[in-house]
Amino acid sequence: MAHTPAWKRLASTSTTFTAKTAPSKAHLHKPIPDDLFPRGYVLGGVHCGVKKDPSVLDLAVLLSTSSRPTSAAASFTRNAIQAAPVTVSKDVLRQSSGRSRALVVNSGCANAPRFIALALALASSSSETLVMSTGVIGQPLPISKILTALHPHGGALARHLGTGFAAWEAAARAFTTTDTFPKLRARALPLGDGRTYRIAGIDKGAGMIHPDMVGPTRPPHATLLGCIATDAPVAPAALQSALDYAVQRSFNAISVDGDMSTNDTVVLFANGAGDLQGGREGIEVEAEAEIDEARDPGTFVRFRDGLTTFMQELAQLVVRDGEGATKFVTVSVEGARSYEDAHKIASKISTSALFKTALYGEDANWGRVLAAAGSVPLAAPLDPTRVSVSFIPTDGSPTLPLLVNGEPEQVDEVRAKEILSLEDLEVRVDLGLGSESAKYWTCDLSYEYVRINGDYRS
Amino acid sequence: MAHTPAWKRLASTSTTFTAKTAPSKAHLHKPIPDDLFPRGYVLGGVHCGVKKDPSVLDLAVLLSTSSRPTSAAASFTRNAIQAAPVTVSKDVLRQSSGRSRALVVNSGCANAPRFIALALALASSSSETLVMSTGVIGQPLPISKILTALHPHGGALARHLGTGFAAWEAAARAFTTTDTFPKLRARALPLGDGRTYRIAGIDKGAGMIHPDMVGPTRPPHATLLGCIATDAPVAPAALQSALDYAVQRSFNAISVDGDMSTNDTVVLFANGAGDLQGGREGIEVEAEAEIDEARDPGTFVRFRDGLTTFMQELAQLVVRDGEGATKFVTVSVEGARSYEDAHKIASKISTSALFKTALYGEDANWGRVLAAAGSVPLAAPLDPTRVSVSFIPTDGSPTLPLLVNGEPEQVDEVRAKEILSLEDLEVRVDLGLGSESAKYWTCDLSYEYVRINGDYRS
Repeated sequence: MAHTPAWKRLASTSTTFTAKTAPSKAHLHKPIPDDLFPRGYVLGGVHCGVKKDPSVLDLAVLLSTSSRPTSAAASFTRNAIQAAPVTVSKDVLRQSSGRSRALVVNSGCANAPRFIALALALASSSSETLVMSTGVIGQPLPISKILTALHPHGGALARHLGTGFAAWEAAARAFTTTDTFPKLRARALPLGDGRTYRIAGIDKGAGMIHPDMVGPTRPPHATLLGCIATDAPVAPAALQSALDYAVQRSFNAISVDGDMSTNDTVVLFANGAGDLQGGREGIEVEAEAEIDEARDPGTFVRFRDGLTTFMQELAQLVVRDGEGATKFVTVSVEGARSYEDAHKIASKISTSALFKTALYGEDANWGRVLAAAGSVPLAAPLDPTRVSVSFIPTDGSPTLPLLVNGEPEQVDEVRAKEILSLEDLEVRVDLGLGSESAKYWTCDLSYEYVRINGDYRS
Repeated sequence: MAHTPAWKRLASTSTTFTAKTAPSKAHLHKPIPDDLFPRGYVLGGVHCGVKKDPSVLDLAVLLSTSSRPTSAAASFTRNAIQAAPVTVSKDVLRQSSGRSRALVVNSGCANAPRFIALALALASSSSETLVMSTGVIGQPLPISKILTALHPHGGALARHLGTGFAAWEAAARAFTTTDTFPKLRARALPLGDGRTYRIAGIDKGAGMIHPDMVGPTRPPHATLLGCIATDAPVAPAALQSALDYAVQRSFNAISVDGDMSTNDTVVLFANGAGDLQGGREGIEVEAEAEIDEARDPGTFVRFRDGLTTFMQELAQLVVRDGEGATKFVTVSVEGARSYEDAHKIASKISTSALFKTALYGEDANWGRVLAAAGSVPLAAPLDPTRVSVSFIPTDGSPTLPLLVNGEPEQVDEVRAKEILSLEDLEVRVDLGLGSESAKYWTCDLSYEYVRINGDYRS
């Protein structure tokens, strides 16, 4: 068509309306006592110039200073289009056999698809440095600003390194893009026999959040970035095994908008420094052997399960701060024939635009839950006469059945509204077919999501 | 938790948004000359009371009055949860071996999942009646109102049947839910050798639109409803074969919100009446044999291809009237190893919330296109260094390359804005791997979509 017909040239109309927006989430970030952070790490966060606003941090480093070897494990996006930092970090881990002690993270530019200069520069300066980037995909990264800030003599980062809450918090701030608060947690990690280590983690999310990550040696799919560090001593293979297990039950079970990034990466360090500095009465004790899955399965499982619980907390922070989110919703699928079926259905419900707008509108439209569940292709199909759907409030009040064995209940709409008006709620689907289950964490789809993403780059 | 912490009880804040809304789409519905409609059908649309507003039509019928046998074919949702009308219509087609001559359609209530009374009542009164419902899932259908309106003596429909534009238009209005205009098209259908028949169709869509439909004899998955009628003579098997082919390239290649309904159904009738009444100089001529795929492949292919083009027009109307849509976007995936790969990637891009909000915001964020394409799991992965992305304007001006063989172009942002401000545009992704291609039609994700679906039932 050489000419645009008249009706297409008509100006679009505009509407002005008032809409509910996300409540402040600032209370989700709070000070953490310095002694909960793992020993043997220094961190820092500075403004180096990738982002325009000079008051906003955009570059973080974490460095293990432990005198013992530091193990590193990572989980990367399965997206076939992978950002340069993903490719490079994979190579670093492979070449170092899981022994890396440093991480450099920039926000403001995703360094994708192929602006590989930074990653190469860093990797060549040290074969043990992992890299992560987040921000707009497809814009050139201002490498020289980053290298200047990283310079060991006179670089801004060298003057801003520390070991306690302030340093971790600055690093966490430098991870953020559209996040409304820095995401940082730390806790004690008891591994039995009186041994207690420390674990701390930073992550960031907000949009393009539907991670599907796997370890570096398997066929590789999110922008979710996470960095976790512990001062427990863990062998590289055991560290990767624990991370794979924990990622599947935490970051791979969250969705903000169903879009998988080219950059999703979670990195986990274990440096054994808790042994060296945590001896009774301050006396340095003999270092314990690294935790090994085959040699000490009991301790391994305690480590893995402690890690999983910690990573679920970090992952849920991402959903609570999802772009425009006003609600935090747990989708539980039970009674499935397999964990995979349950996971697929929970994922599909968690990404349904109709379910998510109904949540925003606080509308008890369980039909949308049912339609989403049914749309997942399974080897053996669902039986509609066995499906039940209920809403579970988080305030301890009774659950509300909506559909029981395929038969709609007479729903008390007032009670349904009551549950839906909570900021936290759970939607439970029982397929009635087996005993397997899976959980997903998601948020609602609001006007604010559209505003944020209709106008992200400007 | 027995107690809700204080911060959760905090009132959510509100913001005032000024938002671009969809321009009027009223010009897409216009009068059609009576003689373009197929011969041998009577139709009507009335208000029977399923919907509250008495000025809104909610019940339609189509009946073939041809003295020849009428063939019927249909394509149904693959959703494992299927509404009663889907189950019943499948049984009718199976039992009648593709010979049905009537269709009853109600809007305002989806008659899902298991309120089967209407469907049973209709099916038992005539083994040849197909049924379709659309509206809210999970609310009881007021059967008696529908049966009263359908009563042959004194029922409202009996007084409102006709054969020309007015009757078809009333039926089309009775199909609508959140549609902003009735969707009706008719055209001549030339089949070679001077034979020309007529074809007309009605459809409706707006939300829960991501159909995936198959014929009644294959494992079954929309609320998209379509009804197409032709006065060509076509044998039942050939009719189903032509419909299967056309559905895959029309209704199964559109997405408004990525949600698949429990009710999606397209029904196609062929009654051969064009032969009986279309004889030269008004003299009734000898009826031709029904078109058969094996016996007359040439005519069959002309019928199938004419049907496909017509159904693409009907399908595109649904996207143009997608809930809150301000843009109509063609997603073309080329250079794929297989049609299936191309179709999967086009589908994934068309459902990406980030891509669709960028379209709404008129933001040339091609990185989101790339991330969505890469997130599709394929047997053989994409090669990022071979992928190209470009924007194709529909006003005849030059195309705009954004990514060429994995290398980002220096993009003229003014030109990109120019293309993105068009109501119609095409996004083309070339995978550089093969010669197969697929097209999808989609729309943007706007504030209005959230408004419509956050508050649908009230």
